[in-house]
Amino acid sequence: MNKDIFVTLLGQRHFKAVRSILDAMNEVDIASLLSELDDRELALAFRLIPKDKAAEVFSNTETSMQTYLVEIFSEKELKELLDDLYMDDTVDLLEELPANLVNRILDTVSPEDRSLINQILNYPDDSAGSIMTTEYVDIRETMTVAQSMAHIKKTGIHKETIYTCYVTDKRKLIGIVSAKDLMTSDDDMLIKDLMETEIISVNTHTDQEEVARIFTKYDFLALPVLDKDGRMVGIVTFDDAMDVMVDEATEDITKMAAMSPSEKTYFETSVFDHAKHRILWLLVLMFSASITGAIITRYENAFAAIPLLVSFIPMLMDTGGNCGSQSSTLIIRGIALGEIQFRDIFRVVFKEFRISLIVSTVLALANGIRILIMYQNMTLALVIGLSLIGTVILSKMIGCVLPLFAKKTGLDPAVMAAPLITTLVDTCSILIYFNIASALFEL
Amino acid sequence: MNKDIFVTLLGQRHFKAVRSILDAMNEVDIASLLSELDDRELALAFRLIPKDKAAEVFSNTETSMQTYLVEIFSEKELKELLDDLYMDDTVDLLEELPANLVNRILDTVSPEDRSLINQILNYPDDSAGSIMTTEYVDIRETMTVAQSMAHIKKTGIHKETIYTCYVTDKRKLIGIVSAKDLMTSDDDMLIKDLMETEIISVNTHTDQEEVARIFTKYDFLALPVLDKDGRMVGIVTFDDAMDVMVDEATEDITKMAAMSPSEKTYFETSVFDHAKHRILWLLVLMFSASITGAIITRYENAFAAIPLLVSFIPMLMDTGGNCGSQSSTLIIRGIALGEIQFRDIFRVVFKEFRISLIVSTVLALANGIRILIMYQNMTLALVIGLSLIGTVILSKMIGCVLPLFAKKTGLDPAVMAAPLITTLVDTCSILIYFNIASALFEL
Repeated sequence: MNKDIFVTLLGQRHFKAVRSILDAMNEVDIASLLSELDDRELALAFRLIPKDKAAEVFSNTETSMQTYLVEIFSEKELKELLDDLYMDDTVDLLEELPANLVNRILDTVSPEDRSLINQILNYPDDSAGSIMTTEYVDIRETMTVAQSMAHIKKTGIHKETIYTCYVTDKRKLIGIVSAKDLMTSDDDMLIKDLMETEIISVNTHTDQEEVARIFTKYDFLALPVLDKDGRMVGIVTFDDAMDVMVDEATEDITKMAAMSPSEKTYFETSVFDHAKHRILWLLVLMFSASITGAIITRYENAFAAIPLLVSFIPMLMDTGGNCGSQSSTLIIRGIALGEIQFRDIFRVVFKEFRISLIVSTVLALANGIRILIMYQNMTLALVIGLSLIGTVILSKMIGCVLPLFAKKTGLDPAVMAAPLITTLVDTCSILIYFNIASALFEL
Repeated sequence: MNKDIFVTLLGQRHFKAVRSILDAMNEVDIASLLSELDDRELALAFRLIPKDKAAEVFSNTETSMQTYLVEIFSEKELKELLDDLYMDDTVDLLEELPANLVNRILDTVSPEDRSLINQILNYPDDSAGSIMTTEYVDIRETMTVAQSMAHIKKTGIHKETIYTCYVTDKRKLIGIVSAKDLMTSDDDMLIKDLMETEIISVNTHTDQEEVARIFTKYDFLALPVLDKDGRMVGIVTFDDAMDVMVDEATEDITKMAAMSPSEKTYFETSVFDHAKHRILWLLVLMFSASITGAIITRYENAFAAIPLLVSFIPMLMDTGGNCGSQSSTLIIRGIALGEIQFRDIFRVVFKEFRISLIVSTVLALANGIRILIMYQNMTLALVIGLSLIGTVILSKMIGCVLPLFAKKTGLDPAVMAAPLITTLVDTCSILIYFNIASALFEL
């Protein structure tokens, strides 16, 4: 939809045309159209959205717009919106709003919803409880297929998903029936003969990353969430799991480049916040790199005698850093996807060792030949070749072992990525290099 | 399920017990249990899996196991399996099997399926066509809700998803109805009054990454795929889109660490293949780093006069590399998520410039003070401080601009990550450093 046409129609008060445009558009697209409007147009446009779409449009807009809308809504408008919002979206909203608006919302919802909301707000960040919704289809094992379908017809419209129905008995989850099973089975079949009883579920405190992994593994549409007493309290739906997957990958990638992760997009994050997220690690790494510098000064005599030695420092440092971060990257990703565990450490080390033998030999030969041709100096070629072999093997060992130890000790493996590995490997490669050089050149 | 108990029961021919265990287990878990069995046990166990689960278990097992099973199956067994496999899983299987088994399968399926399979196999790798399935629920706009439900009851059991129904007219897609709408609407309502007509679809040649982005944006369960004449040919389901998302993130992360991506997991990839994926970039980067080395030799006089200068090289190079890769990482991820476009280049550059002013000032002050304390040398502190400021600003500019240009010219932005940026920035930082040092120390 072209924004200008829309704004013109809105400005000329062609409400019927605006309404029929909004009627035809997808909720996500309406939300992104609204984000381009100014406040007055926004208020007007939002009120023209068909009632059955308003809540979903609202939950797809950005926080600043949600805040504005909650501020200007009348009591009645706010109540209508909250009635149509799914519980997990309401909670997401409350987590972002300023305190006065939070109170306004809590005053508007029913007392039962208020207590539910407070309960969900209390689950730890990044837990299954914090991303679940409490609206799911709840049936009994004594119902027939036809009764269940009638139940869904009556209550389903307000549920986030009706495609998985949960069979409960005194709030305990005893079975699961898919809408596909209901739709393709005979009307008088009993739920207890249809339901799946081997149930995969998570706890309210299960980490959301684990939840996302279960979704990817089993291709579920929804996953039941149980409280510590084993009672069913909600479901996580696949769309929230997809968001978690994308967010977790972004978080890992950000950490792997030595930054604190941000929950906002690149442009939403302010210059000051960007700087804040980047400075800490830069300072740590900068001072660590100074150690490498201090070590170099110990070999002042070596490069005073043969100044050419200095010129190979960048190549050795970079190659070591690259080799180390190749290994650490693969291991970090493998851990994140659940493909590599700490108990695999010996398999990993042995594999990386064999890889680094191949890689280092090729690199040493290529560089040795280059040096022979350029400088006709066999000893120098040998020094660089041997230093490369030592650096590559050591850096791949460091690169594969550190993320596994981080995982074991409860640290985030993503921190053990390129920048930190590079800094550590630098020191090692300088030591290897100058020791080999001192020995072979008899300095 | 404990493997040992299972194998014991299987060995003792307690088929009834084995069958009831398999009956209770999830298909994905059965597949991972089977992967631990040896060939003879596997053949036995697979034949004991309840018929309604066998195809899904099969499609969740690894290629080597699938190959083995296809080899040992009788004509009848193979036909039963292929009848129950979804079209996209059959195609996946064919892409992995050796040629003689591919022919065996193509001989077994019906002529219509054979021509469909051949058509799907012809779509480009990584396109929507190559990951779609051709089994979807197809209804007419003149049907009522009750008629549609009856149609689903009759045909739905063989469809990969029945939760989105497609309204077609002479193979053109004219509307979409969700199962939720069907289940919560009156029986005699007409499909044409219920269907959504604003349809988001993709083309058979749409890149799978774009497909995954649409899923994440709109939270769809399935997405229709049209051929170049606008006729509906299949659907992509959310589970395949989730797999694409995970795979694409892994591919990006791998490329960002200067490796060729692999479609296999870490342990599945052989030592030789690992080495092959890593060597090319290491060679390129190693020789590029030699340029930095060559530049250093031009300043031999400078560090012959003040050897201490050499010791700051690692710190400057690492800091420049880290700053550059911070920026490039954020931009690469932003491009991958569709948050940053080439047209944002000036906004990005201006933002990164302001960030680098803050970051470089802090780093320069911290290091300047350290040097003043350690060496009581004001000029040295000034040289290092100014070099840091120059290096940080320049590396952040390079880091944010290169991925955007890569995108613009059709290269993969992920290649413009830490390793390449580091190598480029190294040269710049050395030049900045020695020029400032030569000027201030009057060398």
